Amino acid sequence: MPFPVGIAGFTGYSGAEAVRILAGHPDLEPVLLEHRADTGGGAKLLKKSGVRRAPASAEAVRNEGIRAVLLATPPEVSMDLTPKFLGAGAIVIDLSGAFRLRTAERYRHWYKEEHTAPELFGEAVYGLPEYTREQVKGARLISNPGCYPTAANLAIRPLVEAGILDPRAGVICDAKSGVSGAGRKASLKTSFCEVTENFSAYSILGHRHVPEVLQTSGLEERDFSFTAQLIPLDRGILETIYFRTAQPMTAAEILAVYERQYAAEPFVRLYEAGHVPDLHAVRRTNFCDIGVVADPATCRCVVVSAIDNLGKGAAGQAIQNLNLTLGLPETAGLL
Amino acid sequence: MPFPVGIAGFTGYSGAEAVRILAGHPDLEPVLLEHRADTGGGAKLLKKSGVRRAPASAEAVRNEGIRAVLLATPPEVSMDLTPKFLGAGAIVIDLSGAFRLRTAERYRHWYKEEHTAPELFGEAVYGLPEYTREQVKGARLISNPGCYPTAANLAIRPLVEAGILDPRAGVICDAKSGVSGAGRKASLKTSFCEVTENFSAYSILGHRHVPEVLQTSGLEERDFSFTAQLIPLDRGILETIYFRTAQPMTAAEILAVYERQYAAEPFVRLYEAGHVPDLHAVRRTNFCDIGVVADPATCRCVVVSAIDNLGKGAAGQAIQNLNLTLGLPETAGLL
Amino acid sequence: MPFPVGIAGFTGYSGAEAVRILAGHPDLEPVLLEHRADTGGGAKLLKKSGVRRAPASAEAVRNEGIRAVLLATPPEVSMDLTPKFLGAGAIVIDLSGAFRLRTAERYRHWYKEEHTAPELFGEAVYGLPEYTREQVKGARLISNPGCYPTAANLAIRPLVEAGILDPRAGVICDAKSGVSGAGRKASLKTSFCEVTENFSAYSILGHRHVPEVLQTSGLEERDFSFTAQLIPLDRGILETIYFRTAQPMTAAEILAVYERQYAAEPFVRLYEAGHVPDLHAVRRTNFCDIGVVADPATCRCVVVSAIDNLGKGAAGQAIQNLNLTLGLPETAGLL
Amino acid sequence: MPFPVGIAGFTGYSGAEAVRILAGHPDLEPVLLEHRADTGGGAKLLKKSGVRRAPASAEAVRNEGIRAVLLATPPEVSMDLTPKFLGAGAIVIDLSGAFRLRTAERYRHWYKEEHTAPELFGEAVYGLPEYTREQVKGARLISNPGCYPTAANLAIRPLVEAGILDPRAGVICDAKSGVSGAGRKASLKTSFCEVTENFSAYSILGHRHVPEVLQTSGLEERDFSFTAQLIPLDRGILETIYFRTAQPMTAAEILAVYERQYAAEPFVRLYEAGHVPDLHAVRRTNFCDIGVVADPATCRCVVVSAIDNLGKGAAGQAIQNLNLTLGLPETAGLL
Repeated sequence: MPFPVGIAGFTGYSGAEAVRILAGHPDLEPVLLEHRADTGGGAKLLKKSGVRRAPASAEAVRNEGIRAVLLATPPEVSMDLTPKFLGAGAIVIDLSGAFRLRTAERYRHWYKEEHTAPELFGEAVYGLPEYTREQVKGARLISNPGCYPTAANLAIRPLVEAGILDPRAGVICDAKSGVSGAGRKASLKTSFCEVTENFSAYSILGHRHVPEVLQTSGLEERDFSFTAQLIPLDRGILETIYFRTAQPMTAAEILAVYERQYAAEPFVRLYEAGHVPDLHAVRRTNFCDIGVVADPATCRCVVVSAIDNLGKGAAGQAIQNLNLTLGLPETAGLL
Repeated sequence: MPFPVGIAGFTGYSGAEAVRILAGHPDLEPVLLEHRADTGGGAKLLKKSGVRRAPASAEAVRNEGIRAVLLATPPEVSMDLTPKFLGAGAIVIDLSGAFRLRTAERYRHWYKEEHTAPELFGEAVYGLPEYTREQVKGARLISNPGCYPTAANLAIRPLVEAGILDPRAGVICDAKSGVSGAGRKASLKTSFCEVTENFSAYSILGHRHVPEVLQTSGLEERDFSFTAQLIPLDRGILETIYFRTAQPMTAAEILAVYERQYAAEPFVRLYEAGHVPDLHAVRRTNFCDIGVVADPATCRCVVVSAIDNLGKGAAGQAIQNLNLTLGLPETAGLL
Repeated sequence: MPFPVGIAGFTGYSGAEAVRILAGHPDLEPVLLEHRADTGGGAKLLKKSGVRRAPASAEAVRNEGIRAVLLATPPEVSMDLTPKFLGAGAIVIDLSGAFRLRTAERYRHWYKEEHTAPELFGEAVYGLPEYTREQVKGARLISNPGCYPTAANLAIRPLVEAGILDPRAGVICDAKSGVSGAGRKASLKTSFCEVTENFSAYSILGHRHVPEVLQTSGLEERDFSFTAQLIPLDRGILETIYFRTAQPMTAAEILAVYERQYAAEPFVRLYEAGHVPDLHAVRRTNFCDIGVVADPATCRCVVVSAIDNLGKGAAGQAIQNLNLTLGLPETAGLL
Repeated sequence: MPFPVGIAGFTGYSGAEAVRILAGHPDLEPVLLEHRADTGGGAKLLKKSGVRRAPASAEAVRNEGIRAVLLATPPEVSMDLTPKFLGAGAIVIDLSGAFRLRTAERYRHWYKEEHTAPELFGEAVYGLPEYTREQVKGARLISNPGCYPTAANLAIRPLVEAGILDPRAGVICDAKSGVSGAGRKASLKTSFCEVTENFSAYSILGHRHVPEVLQTSGLEERDFSFTAQLIPLDRGILETIYFRTAQPMTAAEILAVYERQYAAEPFVRLYEAGHVPDLHAVRRTNFCDIGVVADPATCRCVVVSAIDNLGKGAAGQAIQNLNLTLGLPETAGLL
């Protein structure tokens, strides 16, 4: 019998994707945790879906035997719900930015609001399994990484660690995202006529995902330039990353670094030297695809990293973390 | 020196299109009439545009010497502003549905709200120049037709008048519109992720544009089935119209009826027998394009009628009406 | 151990979708049958996918122990390959139009070319499981229905059989399809700039899918008007179907007919009276969703039927048929 | 009476845009020069358009009194037609890459083919009016700049000239283009289903437009990294350009450099400090819009430059050059 897993914020795009993945998961079963802010919608089918529902309360989590809860909610809601669900004995995987940074000060600086549950920073584990797999396994509170940082860190960190990237020469991450990354709340900025046949940059140099990249990659802010941009499509993130190698290196040599790092990883895929992924390659998957182009003569290098922002960038990675905490096969429900 | 023309609702899609057309009009100059509901936006250029602005008040209309006002506002705002601007001596062209039907009862039935200016029904002229050109020329208040009815009436009325369409065999108008037809207000229904890679029908058999089609085409409701549908694109309306001819007729014979009716019309274009327009053909134009396919053996006929919903379906037709009322060449600024 | 299933035409959109479904099927395993016309493409991953490959020959089918072959190929290729694979002892499920009509004459009339394997008409079973489930179970050659006819027949046939639709009052099927329905071959008509922000009708009254609708629904050509139209999106078919009921009937009464017909069907879903499906509801599924709007006072009725053209309209239905012929659960790999 | 201007390649996207602009030009009239490679298409209107047509021959150019010819043709066709039309006394504005580089060797290196008219390099003027206005005025052969280099050079050159950009710290140009930039020829890469809901990078570090940027901006290849990327939209180019200032500078200080350079330019628009253009701002215009974001503390700077690839990136700039060579107002037909 499958374990019940609660999802708060199931009407949002990440939450709905988590429900979809859990519905096909061999060992888990979704329970929709109803919250006052849920917006309606959905097909008016004569035969209603049989997905379980319960209130988003500690009591319901206890009564329904819910082992783990995914919070696909805004940070302020996550800060409110997390202590309640932890108190009810559930593992919490939070998809918001509430617990990604490590201090209330950094949170205030980047999120422009006060943190209301700073006592939880200590036990929150940043759930990027490729780097924190062992901590995730024993965690009670997992902070699921942001979409942009997931694609950036998986591409950048191995190169910094291997010492082949020259940080002082600057690292540029030109990031492009589909519109679902902005959430489901109606807004002029994400309305169809404003987005279609358009392309726009936002939060240049000041995006709140920047500190997550610095934290994990080992870069310093002065060396890292990040731009977020909106592509007229539903889902997907592609990041074009520019840097200099400390010594002349071919694409194949740089790929060798990635191959060593990710040889055993089920969700990182590498491309032949000189080839890079596009968004179709990762659409509706939990993969992060990475490709390298380099010019050894000038040490210029371009790495392209692509994910589905609702997959490896949100709900997929949350299920990957969930599998780890529950002792299930890491890829269950995700291939 | 160009005449100043006021535009209320200039931040909406129809209003902005009217401003765009007027900016290139040889004889007219736009004046933006600022209203409390205007939403911001627009490029943050260092050199500001020189377009004139004034409050949306009778006094401003008098002071600025504004001869005519376009109301690209919701019906309830139009009902409020129309008497004020008429009182200030301006010609009013209303792009909303406020004055399209002829009685307060029909308005209440189809728009589900009370009409607050029923005394103006008497002098409101329905501005479909191909059929009401002479009345428009002398009018003080012009009700600009709805987008769907414009494409439908230009296609259907000549056939009803010529007696070649058998109304009792039923007339189907399967209409598809771009998203700008729903206006610029943020809404989940018109948000990018809900619309892209989607197609949906709404207001089946009950759309508020139906009575406008009946009023002008001469059809009765029991014989006319209308469905509105949302295409994942910005602008354009294409209507696929199905009916039976009373006698066997070829596409060429049916086209001859249109040719007689529209020989002198600058904004109705006809296609070779068996060929029909697509939306690219009318994009950003004031044309209504019509094509005919017929099977004389069975009297089945399909007519495709296409317009730009912001052009001939809204702002373009409003400028066409404006040209007529001001005694300017009908096509000025529109070709 | 899973049965190997061959797919010819695996680089096309329907073929690739079949490979994708089979890769997740609990009892079947895809084998790519390589054919001279396959176009390249695909991600240049360092670790190659482990999907089996073999030549598209009778010998390979025998040697690989392939029990069934899906032909996602053009009709002329299907006519050539079918006898070979049947001769090698495989079940053949043909996704082309080669064996959908019942005589070489009708094929010549609608497909404008000679049929080169007319001797196979006799044993080809039209694989619409909701109506031909028992014949499919014992068949050696299954002709998989066209995408447009699948959505049309599932919506129309129950009403004709129940005698509640008045055929002489005319049945209109206004069909809209995503671009993948046109296949993967490069063509100006399906190039991005021609399709985006466009909507166009084609094959009005003369589409080659019409005879399939007539054959299964029981309608006659003189009573049925069909238009195919291209939506600027990847996949999905939505058909808006207009007709008159013989007697006044509410939407709920019409739905009751569908409920009786489809009570046990796993892949037909019905909507509450007055509600209709959109394309997101069926995207990447094998469902056919049906909704009804009716005006009993005038006997006008509108039914909306939606499928994924690559799912229930092609590869999904092919796997459904495959499951039936191999004695597997009908829904295996499809939910 | 308007001057006749010939357009070869009028069925392509740039050519068609040139015809559209010329049709609204107060002093010029388009003449379609028919060439064997023209693909058909266009609406099948009953009343044919009155646009003049002539063969793409020297004789026709003489007979029709054509003063200037726009070549919206591939480089190899331009190399063939240019000497003929020059010989017929016409001014030639070539939109291809045939005459943009200055030697046959560079052409061979970047275009991978032999140049067949190297004797014309001497008199070809690179038509970027903001920098070569005076040479354009007296030229007989104008090489119209590439789309990517136009946006890049207008953004980069003023900063290099002013000495405020530190070239050795590297300049990154992450460029994104709509699909019309790839031309109208049918190709799998630009087919709708491959492009929609996708985003892909190509020609990383090796795009043939790179030498044009180096030539005009003054950068060296080792310091300049360029990536071209395909956005799922029709038209528009947005380039996100990253560099370091030699000294700490605010966005306002950097903008002051642009203001000095472009004060009198009709087609370069600047944004308030910290604001950048999107593609809607330049759609269907001849503007290049530029905005700046900077972090003085770290000398990091991001400039966004946007154009319409068919406007300032092709046909619009060609008409701007044409106006200059013919002594007409530079903005005629373009505002």
